[in-house]
Amino acid sequence: MLQVSRRLIKGDRRSLSEAISMLERGNPQGTVILRDVFVHTGRSYCIGITGPPGAGKSTLTARLTSAFRGAGCSVGVIAVDPTSRHSGGAILGDRIRMEAHYLDSEVFIRSMATRGSQGGLPRIIKGVVRLLDAGGKDVILVETVGVGQTELDIMGVGDTVIVTLVPEGGDSIQAFKAGLMEIGDIFVVNKSDRPGADQMVAIINSFVGTGDSKGSWTPPILATQATSGQGISRLYEKLHEHRAYLSSSHQLEERRRERRAGEFFEVLQEGLGLKLRELLNVNHRLAALSDEVKRGKLEPYSAGMKLLEQVSLDLLFHRMKSI
Amino acid sequence: MLQVSRRLIKGDRRSLSEAISMLERGNPQGTVILRDVFVHTGRSYCIGITGPPGAGKSTLTARLTSAFRGAGCSVGVIAVDPTSRHSGGAILGDRIRMEAHYLDSEVFIRSMATRGSQGGLPRIIKGVVRLLDAGGKDVILVETVGVGQTELDIMGVGDTVIVTLVPEGGDSIQAFKAGLMEIGDIFVVNKSDRPGADQMVAIINSFVGTGDSKGSWTPPILATQATSGQGISRLYEKLHEHRAYLSSSHQLEERRRERRAGEFFEVLQEGLGLKLRELLNVNHRLAALSDEVKRGKLEPYSAGMKLLEQVSLDLLFHRMKSI
Repeated sequence: MLQVSRRLIKGDRRSLSEAISMLERGNPQGTVILRDVFVHTGRSYCIGITGPPGAGKSTLTARLTSAFRGAGCSVGVIAVDPTSRHSGGAILGDRIRMEAHYLDSEVFIRSMATRGSQGGLPRIIKGVVRLLDAGGKDVILVETVGVGQTELDIMGVGDTVIVTLVPEGGDSIQAFKAGLMEIGDIFVVNKSDRPGADQMVAIINSFVGTGDSKGSWTPPILATQATSGQGISRLYEKLHEHRAYLSSSHQLEERRRERRAGEFFEVLQEGLGLKLRELLNVNHRLAALSDEVKRGKLEPYSAGMKLLEQVSLDLLFHRMKSI
Repeated sequence: MLQVSRRLIKGDRRSLSEAISMLERGNPQGTVILRDVFVHTGRSYCIGITGPPGAGKSTLTARLTSAFRGAGCSVGVIAVDPTSRHSGGAILGDRIRMEAHYLDSEVFIRSMATRGSQGGLPRIIKGVVRLLDAGGKDVILVETVGVGQTELDIMGVGDTVIVTLVPEGGDSIQAFKAGLMEIGDIFVVNKSDRPGADQMVAIINSFVGTGDSKGSWTPPILATQATSGQGISRLYEKLHEHRAYLSSSHQLEERRRERRAGEFFEVLQEGLGLKLRELLNVNHRLAALSDEVKRGKLEPYSAGMKLLEQVSLDLLFHRMKSI
């Protein structure tokens, strides 16, 4: 076991930080660490907080951090930040909102940039959740931007998913209802002092009421004002209720199983994509083909499909050794 | 050449519609049609319209459609609709906004759902653009939701990209500035009768002024009110200016070359992913591995990476025939 892994599972913040950076940068040691610490994972409770930009997700995250700290839980926060190219530091707004927590040794905060991560961000986030888990955080909050384009949004993270909306969203709820409505275990109408909050609750209710994908759990819809703290204690209660529901109905383990399988697939798919990109430069015949496409001699879609017809992926894994 | 291809390039709407549906459904004939019509493409001018939900993109699209129709151009509209699972029909809001154009035989409108498309949507949209191009549309407008998560948003479509924001966005501009600021050739602050429009223009200006990625083109920032039509004629002018700039600086062809190469890669990457998904069910050793991951015996990330180490993609394309 690597020294950094050993330290990480003992709760060393610096090693945790280092391991996350390795994962982000694609350093192969990051992978080794993940394997090292795997047996020490599974005890954290992970909460995803998503919604459109400007819904107050960061403030809500800060409030929930306080609530969990008040109950004696250690907290890990991952803020997925579409702003900056470089990761590691929180952006100004978040810094202010999270200020109270920066000096708390039981809170670990990490901002991650969506840019420049070569498409692997969802996978990396899952890895970071696992590292925080191994590092002994009782609760992990993952804050991401989402507009309900299910296949594009970063999700599938979180035992419980909080979807955060604002009253004015009624205007654009058409635009994201399907995706966000399906992934929410708890809905929050934040900034509920603004006009339209009641209508927004009613709109969400009309969608939530019709679905049955959540089993016997009916997602509650809560009005909050994260800046003043109103509604937070109720949200905190609902989080506990949902967790208890997941455990008693054995859905917690089932969700986690599916997540692991999905993650395995993602890693493979992404890896094949990277290998393909390399190959396009190295393999002469592929490069020639790509060039023909570029020059408009071949139609890209049909050329790609034609090429794929000739390819049997089975070959790749033929001489697979044990892992 | 398929009959549907022949009819499509003669401008038959029904064949165009049919071809798009085939592409969406993954019908192999869709690929054949794309190849058939490829030599008849390249004459359309494609405009991407993106921005967060609620920015008024649909209304803007309807206005631009009118403007181009007024100049005698035929118009194709692709509205990427994150709402519904099934494609083909526009959602209510769009229907109302585009009402005037539905009876116009020189306007072809198509809504596409982001859901249930198994991740291939960006690729499919590019195919649809090509079909509309072959179908003789002079101008193609592609409306997509974007919050600036560059790697996730649907982009890379459009010779010219219009980024649409609203005055209140100032609050959340932190959240999307990086991504959206870089892709915009023209910025629009829509709903500019609302308070904060001037500040929003100033904020965008401060970002746009610093970049030089657009060569000698400085992206203009326009205030519009799409519902009343204010500012649209100016936007229309700027579109022509940008097109002229792209042509004279040879960037139009260069952008299109890069797009074609990117599309080829995307098709291959996605195809490999689909093959992998199949293989996970069929290949016994892979399936066993995936099951171990699911049951928590193996860490998904490192198991995937370990497997990838053993894989040489070169093998796949070894016996590649000509295309």
